[in-house]
Amino acid sequence: MIPDILSQGQYATVYNFLSLVIASQLFTAVFLLISLPRVLPRYRQAITVAIVVCGIAAYHYFRIFDSFKDAFISKAAGGAGDYSQAVGVSFNEGYRYVDWLLTVPLLLVELIAVLALARKVQSGLLMRLVPAAALMIALGYPGEISGDNGLRGLFGLLSTIPFAYILYVLFVQLSKSLNTQPVSVRKTIGRLRFLLLLSWGVYPIAYLLPLLNISGADAWVFKQVGYSVADIVAKAVYALIIFGIAKAKSYEDNAEFAASEAAHDDVASSRR
Amino acid sequence: MIPDILSQGQYATVYNFLSLVIASQLFTAVFLLISLPRVLPRYRQAITVAIVVCGIAAYHYFRIFDSFKDAFISKAAGGAGDYSQAVGVSFNEGYRYVDWLLTVPLLLVELIAVLALARKVQSGLLMRLVPAAALMIALGYPGEISGDNGLRGLFGLLSTIPFAYILYVLFVQLSKSLNTQPVSVRKTIGRLRFLLLLSWGVYPIAYLLPLLNISGADAWVFKQVGYSVADIVAKAVYALIIFGIAKAKSYEDNAEFAASEAAHDDVASSRR
Repeated sequence: MIPDILSQGQYATVYNFLSLVIASQLFTAVFLLISLPRVLPRYRQAITVAIVVCGIAAYHYFRIFDSFKDAFISKAAGGAGDYSQAVGVSFNEGYRYVDWLLTVPLLLVELIAVLALARKVQSGLLMRLVPAAALMIALGYPGEISGDNGLRGLFGLLSTIPFAYILYVLFVQLSKSLNTQPVSVRKTIGRLRFLLLLSWGVYPIAYLLPLLNISGADAWVFKQVGYSVADIVAKAVYALIIFGIAKAKSYEDNAEFAASEAAHDDVASSRR
Repeated sequence: MIPDILSQGQYATVYNFLSLVIASQLFTAVFLLISLPRVLPRYRQAITVAIVVCGIAAYHYFRIFDSFKDAFISKAAGGAGDYSQAVGVSFNEGYRYVDWLLTVPLLLVELIAVLALARKVQSGLLMRLVPAAALMIALGYPGEISGDNGLRGLFGLLSTIPFAYILYVLFVQLSKSLNTQPVSVRKTIGRLRFLLLLSWGVYPIAYLLPLLNISGADAWVFKQVGYSVADIVAKAVYALIIFGIAKAKSYEDNAEFAASEAAHDDVASSRR
């Protein structure tokens, strides 16, 4: 699974993408932390969860980055030539699952929190989404660490069941609640669900690569890049969209707040 | 007690669980720190103590993680194959006791602080709970580091006395005070005590494993996983429930605060 040898270019590609994820997650968290007072208090729970998700992802990517740097070494001067696996150190693919076990349920909490639904509806949705998300990740793990394609396929299949259930809750059950949302954000929330579907779709594809007999160093590098891009979209980009929704809803709820906060001439003009 | 050899899978399991605890404690602390203004000032003492507890636990798990990483090494390329004990470095199980000595009394302070009882009742409860908790941990330590099963049993038994006393205070003496709590949180506080009982119950079980002649690498890995999960539940999950109680009580105490803070449409609607 983990290639014995990476070319200098392959090594640099993975190295740079892992670092890109750290920068994206860490500074999305910093941006949101500074911007927290720019939404009404009732939407700060959603943004706080978004900060925590990006923070947890940054922490794990620091570890993944270090693990990668330790796991491959070049014997040539200046790091030229191939990088081969170091003695006694393994690249820990498992970190991704530890990260997802915490962050994936929280991504759904973020989404539900920003909707600010009635208490009963909200807890009903969370009681269904959070355990399903944790189960989805937990079922993927045994397949990922097993070298056996049969086990990988079996656990991949099992993990698809909670995934399908999450999609059902998001695209069928949640749709009713969307009618209570301000018109201005309804479209964005709809698009957010598709972003979630699209970015989450990368994970099963990367997971199934070994089953398609796509292996070797190139496939592994491709998988690392795919996971990295998916993590940026599913967490950092997603968080920024959630922040946009929270801001739009804050303005909608409170015209005075909108007039003082909005940077747009047309929104702010109401104060003159 | 500490196994000479761990398989690659056993090593990865302990490694990932220790890291999971770091992420959980650290980002629960971050979440609560950001969320502190979201409860009334009178409940911020409880949340501050919760932040400190999760922070202390994160610090100790950083140390435990590093200690584990240094204590076991693999001689194979890519870290494949078994991990054996490194020369000159030992895994420091004692860190857990240093952590508990600080955090376990503070967990009880958290609980009492969020109840916001009369000054006299509060200090009466703390004067009983805090020394008992410190004594419970201090008595467990000599048994844990002793290789002798007789000493382990003796100190385990001694440590059970303050534990039983804590349960008596929490489940008998505290029950009277619960009637002064708002109805909305009474159930949650009741459940919190059982969460505490359940998660604290893991520690004596792990402690007694050697007495039951359950030993070997698998038992040791199981113990590390058990301690990790128990620490996440007893500190991070517990802190989030305390935060929930503090938020509910804040809303109950101050309708204006509730209207501006509450994310739920039905609570917030009272403001319109």
